[in-house]
Amino acid sequence: MNVTVRGRSQHFRTVTFDRAQNAVLLIEQRLLPHEFKIVATPDFRATAAAITDMIVRGAGAIGATAAYGLAQGALAFRGRDPKKFSAHVETVYQVLKNARPTAVDPVNAMNDVRRHMSPGQTVAERQFLALAAAEEFAREDVQHCEEIGRHGAKLIRNGMKILTHCNAGWLAFVDIGTATAPMYAAQEQGKQFHVFCGETRPRSQGATLTAWEFAQQKISHQIIADNAAGHLMQRGEIDLVIVGSDRTLGRTGEVTNKIGTYTKAVLAARHKIPFYVAIPLSTIDWNLKRGFDIPIEERNESEVLGAWGVIDNSKFKIQNSKLKQRAYVRVANPTSGARNPGFDVTPAELITGVITPAGIFKPQELWKQRSKLGFGGQQSVRLRNLT
Amino acid sequence: MNVTVRGRSQHFRTVTFDRAQNAVLLIEQRLLPHEFKIVATPDFRATAAAITDMIVRGAGAIGATAAYGLAQGALAFRGRDPKKFSAHVETVYQVLKNARPTAVDPVNAMNDVRRHMSPGQTVAERQFLALAAAEEFAREDVQHCEEIGRHGAKLIRNGMKILTHCNAGWLAFVDIGTATAPMYAAQEQGKQFHVFCGETRPRSQGATLTAWEFAQQKISHQIIADNAAGHLMQRGEIDLVIVGSDRTLGRTGEVTNKIGTYTKAVLAARHKIPFYVAIPLSTIDWNLKRGFDIPIEERNESEVLGAWGVIDNSKFKIQNSKLKQRAYVRVANPTSGARNPGFDVTPAELITGVITPAGIFKPQELWKQRSKLGFGGQQSVRLRNLT
Repeated sequence: MNVTVRGRSQHFRTVTFDRAQNAVLLIEQRLLPHEFKIVATPDFRATAAAITDMIVRGAGAIGATAAYGLAQGALAFRGRDPKKFSAHVETVYQVLKNARPTAVDPVNAMNDVRRHMSPGQTVAERQFLALAAAEEFAREDVQHCEEIGRHGAKLIRNGMKILTHCNAGWLAFVDIGTATAPMYAAQEQGKQFHVFCGETRPRSQGATLTAWEFAQQKISHQIIADNAAGHLMQRGEIDLVIVGSDRTLGRTGEVTNKIGTYTKAVLAARHKIPFYVAIPLSTIDWNLKRGFDIPIEERNESEVLGAWGVIDNSKFKIQNSKLKQRAYVRVANPTSGARNPGFDVTPAELITGVITPAGIFKPQELWKQRSKLGFGGQQSVRLRNLT
Repeated sequence: MNVTVRGRSQHFRTVTFDRAQNAVLLIEQRLLPHEFKIVATPDFRATAAAITDMIVRGAGAIGATAAYGLAQGALAFRGRDPKKFSAHVETVYQVLKNARPTAVDPVNAMNDVRRHMSPGQTVAERQFLALAAAEEFAREDVQHCEEIGRHGAKLIRNGMKILTHCNAGWLAFVDIGTATAPMYAAQEQGKQFHVFCGETRPRSQGATLTAWEFAQQKISHQIIADNAAGHLMQRGEIDLVIVGSDRTLGRTGEVTNKIGTYTKAVLAARHKIPFYVAIPLSTIDWNLKRGFDIPIEERNESEVLGAWGVIDNSKFKIQNSKLKQRAYVRVANPTSGARNPGFDVTPAELITGVITPAGIFKPQELWKQRSKLGFGGQQSVRLRNLT
């Protein structure tokens, strides 16, 4: 999508590859929304570190980063010995896999690249195929998001007020995003609408990343405290809810997503407001039989007990400070602790529809429609650490 | 309630009066939870400024502060001329009334003090009666909270997990509080329970004030993001919800309270978890016929866009900084705005019971029980700016 840099709107992807430098180019997401910067990772170890350190985050984005990282590592190999090359690629694979051990996307993406490399006869051929496969992986990620946008845009009518939660936007993918895709597509079709970005405490991805995306894309929006969604629904100020998902159960239609999603779904059902979940096919779990069995990650309590931001110098004097000084402030009582579940599970009965690249389905119909939805029999999707 | 100062637990009220100094003693609430300090206001203008600047906040607390402030102003008068005295008292009244023009408690409290002063024959007698009335006002505030505690404690059983929202604790009153009163009473009865303090974005009174109270009182508690309440209810981790109220409609049982209260009530109803509201009689509005007519204050968007706290020096180096440096950090995207409704309205159907000093009632029965609940015919309660 577009970012305004020095007054000029330019197109950027979250992840791209620079062949000349053999580098992966990433939007440095830890600096957002206060600073926009592209970083180039000079080698596969730096690419792995970028995943570990969360310069890049989000299901599709870390998948593509790992795919490019594997190609980057393969291309850096000097020599013609296929055995040595294979051993080198295996090292690259392991380093990238361990960059974020609980995430499934990098592994799936790299397996895809390896599969495409194997027909290559020579080292050079395999290097070529690796990069082609990584580019294809990224292209498909974009295409799936475009298809989600095409289907989802039909739900958006002129004048609508839409609520979203967390960031399932283009920063979480290679481009366009999932929950945001219908909005970007509707904007291209000339529709007028307004989006409320739920702040999404404790990590505030709605207030930081999603709001930043909308500001860059010139989509009319406002941030709200998570507490305000119920009141706005009660007063008729929300017409539609669209969120993303980290894992959707193909057998039950239950949706795992960022903590607070369930609350929004309960509120929407009470107010008879349509509640949609936008997902790429890779997040459908065809194995698990009930959402209650999904382990919910308990995250560090410091997230709940404080907040990260930029010190506002107009309200606070710091000697010799730079204009934009990032800080963590402890908000809560210093002797209190916190509970911090990272995700929650929304039952199918609260979900109006699931927007997929293959169309919009009732959550209860996913299993019946599994042949259209990439059902592959044996599969193991673990809970993504989307943040 | 008790505060541990230099390792020793001592009893403090939010508001008291020092006769020797003719000063109002207040807990400096803006420094909480990071620092505990008592401030003495040397004259009624300083007392009014303490209300304006929110050194003291909360319905009962600002009522008692204004009552004491009026007595303080009256006591400062030198002379015997009743006319000059009356003119002086009128000035004091106006200054204190204008300290927070939209709040109703200071006015009600001062009217009460004036009514008790009027039988006095001399200036000295009226001065004496003013202070006696202010002390009585504060004593009654405490007594009402104790009665709420006595009734509400019956709802708390051993091993319960309770959710509360915002701060309707002793810091909002002279002592004990309303939503917290049942918990403090149950603790005295030796019951074991655990409280989840909803953070209460955007101003975080749950994470700051309520958690501080519980830490001082040694009540087992944890802070949660507002987003986490639904998940905890779904997993069976919440047995009871008790919140306060800024205005309860006597005719309909609808409850106005801090933004996010409605969401908790909707969630509790879905999970069949009892949802109680604890209120002093002064917050019942007997006039208004529907909650939809209550104007909802739209507060400054900076509250949603950032957070106040203490800079954590372990994570952030500031040259020459003091250990506890308070700062506002901008969390949100710098080019985005916010909506910030301060309150919401919960319908009676979602409320299990209203805990009052006169007992626990179904919200739909308040009107029928109005003779027990201080119904006084004509009355005008405006929305309190409880924060």
